[in-house]
Amino acid sequence: MAASDKQEFFKGIGKIPFKADAGPEDTMVFKHYNASQVVHGKTMEEWCRFSVCYWHTFRGVGLDPFGAGTIEREWEDESDSVENAKRRMRVAFEFMAKLGVKYYCFHDRDIAPEGKDLAESNRNLDALVDLAAQLQKETGIKLLWATCNLFSHPRYMNGASTNPDAHVVAYAAAALKKGLEVAHKLGAENYVFWGGREGYNSLLNTDVLAELTHMANFFKMALAYKKKIGFTGQFLIEPKPKEPTKHQYDYDAMTVIAFLKNFGLEKDFKINVEPNHTTLAGHCYEHDIVMASAFGMLGSIDSNTGSPDLGWDTDQFPMDTKACTMVMKTVLEQGGIQPGGLNFDAKVRRESTEVSDMFIAHIGAMDAFARGLKNAARLIEDGIIKKNLEARYKSFSVDIGAKIKAGSATLEECEAFILKNGEPKKTSGKQEHFESMLNHYV
Amino acid sequence: MAASDKQEFFKGIGKIPFKADAGPEDTMVFKHYNASQVVHGKTMEEWCRFSVCYWHTFRGVGLDPFGAGTIEREWEDESDSVENAKRRMRVAFEFMAKLGVKYYCFHDRDIAPEGKDLAESNRNLDALVDLAAQLQKETGIKLLWATCNLFSHPRYMNGASTNPDAHVVAYAAAALKKGLEVAHKLGAENYVFWGGREGYNSLLNTDVLAELTHMANFFKMALAYKKKIGFTGQFLIEPKPKEPTKHQYDYDAMTVIAFLKNFGLEKDFKINVEPNHTTLAGHCYEHDIVMASAFGMLGSIDSNTGSPDLGWDTDQFPMDTKACTMVMKTVLEQGGIQPGGLNFDAKVRRESTEVSDMFIAHIGAMDAFARGLKNAARLIEDGIIKKNLEARYKSFSVDIGAKIKAGSATLEECEAFILKNGEPKKTSGKQEHFESMLNHYV
Amino acid sequence: MAASDKQEFFKGIGKIPFKADAGPEDTMVFKHYNASQVVHGKTMEEWCRFSVCYWHTFRGVGLDPFGAGTIEREWEDESDSVENAKRRMRVAFEFMAKLGVKYYCFHDRDIAPEGKDLAESNRNLDALVDLAAQLQKETGIKLLWATCNLFSHPRYMNGASTNPDAHVVAYAAAALKKGLEVAHKLGAENYVFWGGREGYNSLLNTDVLAELTHMANFFKMALAYKKKIGFTGQFLIEPKPKEPTKHQYDYDAMTVIAFLKNFGLEKDFKINVEPNHTTLAGHCYEHDIVMASAFGMLGSIDSNTGSPDLGWDTDQFPMDTKACTMVMKTVLEQGGIQPGGLNFDAKVRRESTEVSDMFIAHIGAMDAFARGLKNAARLIEDGIIKKNLEARYKSFSVDIGAKIKAGSATLEECEAFILKNGEPKKTSGKQEHFESMLNHYV
Amino acid sequence: MAASDKQEFFKGIGKIPFKADAGPEDTMVFKHYNASQVVHGKTMEEWCRFSVCYWHTFRGVGLDPFGAGTIEREWEDESDSVENAKRRMRVAFEFMAKLGVKYYCFHDRDIAPEGKDLAESNRNLDALVDLAAQLQKETGIKLLWATCNLFSHPRYMNGASTNPDAHVVAYAAAALKKGLEVAHKLGAENYVFWGGREGYNSLLNTDVLAELTHMANFFKMALAYKKKIGFTGQFLIEPKPKEPTKHQYDYDAMTVIAFLKNFGLEKDFKINVEPNHTTLAGHCYEHDIVMASAFGMLGSIDSNTGSPDLGWDTDQFPMDTKACTMVMKTVLEQGGIQPGGLNFDAKVRRESTEVSDMFIAHIGAMDAFARGLKNAARLIEDGIIKKNLEARYKSFSVDIGAKIKAGSATLEECEAFILKNGEPKKTSGKQEHFESMLNHYV
Repeated sequence: MAASDKQEFFKGIGKIPFKADAGPEDTMVFKHYNASQVVHGKTMEEWCRFSVCYWHTFRGVGLDPFGAGTIEREWEDESDSVENAKRRMRVAFEFMAKLGVKYYCFHDRDIAPEGKDLAESNRNLDALVDLAAQLQKETGIKLLWATCNLFSHPRYMNGASTNPDAHVVAYAAAALKKGLEVAHKLGAENYVFWGGREGYNSLLNTDVLAELTHMANFFKMALAYKKKIGFTGQFLIEPKPKEPTKHQYDYDAMTVIAFLKNFGLEKDFKINVEPNHTTLAGHCYEHDIVMASAFGMLGSIDSNTGSPDLGWDTDQFPMDTKACTMVMKTVLEQGGIQPGGLNFDAKVRRESTEVSDMFIAHIGAMDAFARGLKNAARLIEDGIIKKNLEARYKSFSVDIGAKIKAGSATLEECEAFILKNGEPKKTSGKQEHFESMLNHYV
Repeated sequence: MAASDKQEFFKGIGKIPFKADAGPEDTMVFKHYNASQVVHGKTMEEWCRFSVCYWHTFRGVGLDPFGAGTIEREWEDESDSVENAKRRMRVAFEFMAKLGVKYYCFHDRDIAPEGKDLAESNRNLDALVDLAAQLQKETGIKLLWATCNLFSHPRYMNGASTNPDAHVVAYAAAALKKGLEVAHKLGAENYVFWGGREGYNSLLNTDVLAELTHMANFFKMALAYKKKIGFTGQFLIEPKPKEPTKHQYDYDAMTVIAFLKNFGLEKDFKINVEPNHTTLAGHCYEHDIVMASAFGMLGSIDSNTGSPDLGWDTDQFPMDTKACTMVMKTVLEQGGIQPGGLNFDAKVRRESTEVSDMFIAHIGAMDAFARGLKNAARLIEDGIIKKNLEARYKSFSVDIGAKIKAGSATLEECEAFILKNGEPKKTSGKQEHFESMLNHYV
Repeated sequence: MAASDKQEFFKGIGKIPFKADAGPEDTMVFKHYNASQVVHGKTMEEWCRFSVCYWHTFRGVGLDPFGAGTIEREWEDESDSVENAKRRMRVAFEFMAKLGVKYYCFHDRDIAPEGKDLAESNRNLDALVDLAAQLQKETGIKLLWATCNLFSHPRYMNGASTNPDAHVVAYAAAALKKGLEVAHKLGAENYVFWGGREGYNSLLNTDVLAELTHMANFFKMALAYKKKIGFTGQFLIEPKPKEPTKHQYDYDAMTVIAFLKNFGLEKDFKINVEPNHTTLAGHCYEHDIVMASAFGMLGSIDSNTGSPDLGWDTDQFPMDTKACTMVMKTVLEQGGIQPGGLNFDAKVRRESTEVSDMFIAHIGAMDAFARGLKNAARLIEDGIIKKNLEARYKSFSVDIGAKIKAGSATLEECEAFILKNGEPKKTSGKQEHFESMLNHYV
Repeated sequence: MAASDKQEFFKGIGKIPFKADAGPEDTMVFKHYNASQVVHGKTMEEWCRFSVCYWHTFRGVGLDPFGAGTIEREWEDESDSVENAKRRMRVAFEFMAKLGVKYYCFHDRDIAPEGKDLAESNRNLDALVDLAAQLQKETGIKLLWATCNLFSHPRYMNGASTNPDAHVVAYAAAALKKGLEVAHKLGAENYVFWGGREGYNSLLNTDVLAELTHMANFFKMALAYKKKIGFTGQFLIEPKPKEPTKHQYDYDAMTVIAFLKNFGLEKDFKINVEPNHTTLAGHCYEHDIVMASAFGMLGSIDSNTGSPDLGWDTDQFPMDTKACTMVMKTVLEQGGIQPGGLNFDAKVRRESTEVSDMFIAHIGAMDAFARGLKNAARLIEDGIIKKNLEARYKSFSVDIGAKIKAGSATLEECEAFILKNGEPKKTSGKQEHFESMLNHYV
């Protein structure tokens, strides 16, 4: 066992180096991401807090609704054994260490096999959690967030916390209890709730208010238990509008906020925004990041991208520098994303079957974010765009504007103001000017 | 003048009759809508509370982004005069009377021309409001809701209550003051806020939190003034996700609820749902109606439809019996839509240039809703679908289910329940069975 | 073996009866589909030519990208053996017989397990084809169409006939050869090509012209072999715009026509239209059916539906009477769909896990089409809508209209006509009138 | 008059300079577009062939379906007079000269007012065409393409060449005759057909085959007249899937190719691709450019962009460097876009009401394309991506691959090849590697 502990799985691949002048075909080196480089007062590593996701990168096999898995890994023995799970975890830590990523995320069932019953599942989990604790200690890699998979098993087909059968809700709650314990033990900095089956496939057979109430009560149980065990990680809800369910209750950031406020939960949760989910909800790429941040609710980011021409979650690695600049602009403006991070909830394409593709995809995305970070830092340090923005709103610092801003104006005062001052001036929004200014930095 | 008061504009068209056995080409008679027929304990008229919208039906000319107006009406003299506006209003009341619709809705600028300044606009409005009051009295037709057009004039191009220029916000507030007075004077049963320009076209030049705060303060001014003048109509917000603005703050029902709760406004507003807006937000046709109703926030319905293959607001007359059945099912289940109604925020196609098309479109939609009402009433009276629905959730009336429902369960109890009871049974959602049952009624 | 031949799998379910007066909860009987009832000159059965699809109904297990299979059938032994495949086939024939459907469709790999190499796969296929031939003979059920699954196996991940590796193209061709032999042996009335992996995921790594040329050459090989073995079934291409591939070359009916004409294949293929694919391509439900029919290219229909709010293929059972009416209107207008049919390329919802759901779903859809057929027949026999339609185009039977129609007019003649006759009259399109007329029949 | 000929309208704005080191707020200078700079063997000007569109830039007023025009220009006198039109044309040429753009495009009705009848319209057009000829000569600016507006006037509401009334078709033909004469006189290098009203709003009232036949005959009349007058410009069809019409017959590039081939027109037309239309058809930004180019049908590009979250044509100025790189990559690969060009079919936002916004928008887009051009040139000159691409398809140069490519293989040969060679190797598609390589250049 001790020997296999030291086994190297990615032979021939060392720690990915930073090499600014690498050529176009050199996709196995960083050309922009230099972890220790200080940008806008912190290192790149501190700003980005990159995380590798366990599910896509170590459990994904390239299955899609029209085809079998395509991705085979040497270290897998095809079994659903604890032994196989342990070997896989060593691979994962080697991968992260070579990539130079300091965080990871998992669902309970990603790291350990589901047993024949809850007790066995929990025992399996314990075995892997022990190994994870050891590997975390050895490598310094930390758990950005944990979560429970409450959507894949057939028992959850009609929902987990919103299942019409209370027995299933109880099952989900029991799994959640263990999930919180695991998160606590591994020092998870956050815990995420993604409700892939919480929603409806048909309004005809659904009582939405009952289901939302059950979901709220489920969260309240989680809060009580979190307090009881002393877990201090941040609770996060991850919105997604649809897929796999026709309508998911956590449609987007604002819908989650409505839910939280309605059930008095808004102080105890933040939001984990995934841009591919945002675009599926009909918004622009950075919308939910900006909205959640404006409401003080942006907790973490599942940094990926979709294809705007496709109506489902493609979970692609984010490669667009302009989009990454917009994300990092918000992160910098709110002073960082901690205790959240940028988790690559992204998968190599089903056709990208080589081990090197795993590296290339992460490296390309990390470089894209590094460029985004550097762009955003320059943009913010220049202060030009901010100056232009503030000029648009300057009327709210005086006169009737100041009263409107403060909430102390009345309709009568506004009418008097207009009767005296007449028609406002027409002021250009200058969108193209702003777009051109942005292009200066991208 | 007295003579023209009595002028008949729709010569050759009498009151639209109910004739159940009319033929396929007889599209100028009701085959299903029989106003006084009692269904499920009320007359069709009482359930449906149909309303004609002034903007499309009396101000629409068939303009679209690629073409000039196509619709010319004999009664229009092409001027933007008060005189023309008065004649048009008489036409509108004749139309509604012949159609047998008892409610109407308008924006301030629909009924009276905008003047050279606010004072003149208000005087113009007064002239038409006097006539409206008289015609309401003469015909018994009532004002379902009033609203202010705070989006068409160029001054609002960057927003009304969310404009970066406080001067524009003040202008909107001044117009709103008058709008509330008008609504009060005409006994409007509701007052609607639709924020077509409240949102952003680019996040680069927008401070979303400042804008949302200004919007909330705008609503608070409205509430204060409503109280001051004793106006008792229900305040309604109408969600729309986008168009004309890239992103509108009132995206959908849940987004509006988040906004209202965030700013402490949820007790004073309900929601006016327009299904064409719902589908543009990526939901199914009846989604926002069901969600708003579940949260006790469904105030009124702008009954129209879009084309699912188009990405903009087509405001078509609703002609689909199944969709109308789903709407009326919710209306019946919540005991009616009053003080709201079913307002036809719908326009004849740009190519439907004849006066008869105005009638045919409304008649066809009223018949579709009458069928929907009768279907929904049978469905509810049979109780079969409800029985099937309740059976799905029956586990929440006992044991751990009852505790989850009541919010008194803990994760520990749930775990104990599962350790004792094991895996839940797999229970079919039976969606196709529900769909087939629905088809029995449609 | 003889005994098990006679085994009844759906115990307690007899032949589904026609019972027009059944109640709302009676979803296991036909209320509208009466196979032998004559409508518009043929029996319902002859018009509809319903077909059960093997893949969803007998191979679907409720797997989706976020969850494991949910559907377990008693007759399955979990093995991928020929024995299991044979038992499954007997179940399928019992199901079809009880349902009263006379056609079925399959992919080669639906009915028989893939072997360790092509030779074994072909032997497996032979074993099942023998049984299918026997069961077809015993039951009178016929093969509407066969096809090869050239998309599920990992070897096809980058395409089958459009794979960048010629070795894979050759593999697909070898499978196709066997598929055509099987179709011929079983008397398939059609053979379908669906190119789920023929397209691109990224334009960066794709040579589209090379790939399209290879696809055309693949079809030419098929035509040559079809002729050689004397197979007389109709070749059909099934368009789909995307999913699983980002862009599929057979985007929609018109795209397929462009491809066929470009490579000189248009005389030898027709189109198998699936409405859920049509709507994913941004068209209305019946668009491709109407377009393909207009060009004489409508060969068959994969009768299903999607949800307009979802961006992927949900393959739901068609339950909307109005949509079915529009489909059957086109089918009746072109004199029938033979040798094609209405194949239910539809799957029970993942949550519809009971055996009865299989029946309910098919019955509900068959009833919806039976209503559509009856509606369309009345609509056509009345002739009212057709009369209204012909009136719109009557100007093309005389004068300049007749010349334009015949292709013999010139721009100079048109100019002379306008200089003489001036501005055309404005003629209402009367869409709402047409919609109301349609509602008379629905 | 002579004096006003020399009037300067954009006072204070000189010829836009190239200044590579300008700052972020300097949006009125080129930082990348240097017209005379040689890139990949030609000047930037020769590769880009930028064109200003008359409709948006000189006729757009910021009207949208929910609001009045916002854009007022000093040089407009609000009249629809020939005099006003002439002044506007001088402004346009001054604008283009200062911007340094050498091409422009117009619809007939953009440059001259529609008269009370065709004869007057033609006279108005003649007056402006004379001025255009003079200004073209004076400035060296050329007409990239002309077109007729056959969609804005109410007469075209039901279609132009596909109108159900032959009288309207004749009117469109008469206008087309004049349009071709004008194009010929002004030396237009292309003539574009965009059929905004050629399609259907409802299949119920439409005979699609009749309409498509009339459209084909309309094109044939155009070809005959083109030949007669000796006009040598390239005929182009511009696809758009929908808007203003529910379905437009020229849905996308492949649909246009199907139509052209069906009616024997494919040799006489090429395609003018507008990426905002491409994305509305559900494709990725560069799809139609790549597809049209692959089929030898890419004639010109209406270079603009939409917002992926919006379902209508926003005609924004293209500001995304990566998208511009992909476009220029195809342009370079096919050796240039001449006689077509990059026409900015784009409009300043409705809120961008200042004259400077007109300049900023064009400058920003020209700079984006200049960056795209430089990126694409480096990418092509390096040859690395091409080398990677060719490696994917190398198997088609030998053995069975060569036969498949040549169209000489048979299914039997393919089967023999597989029986001998067995399963193909799995080969990674390496999409992320390609994306990372692209990012090297962007």
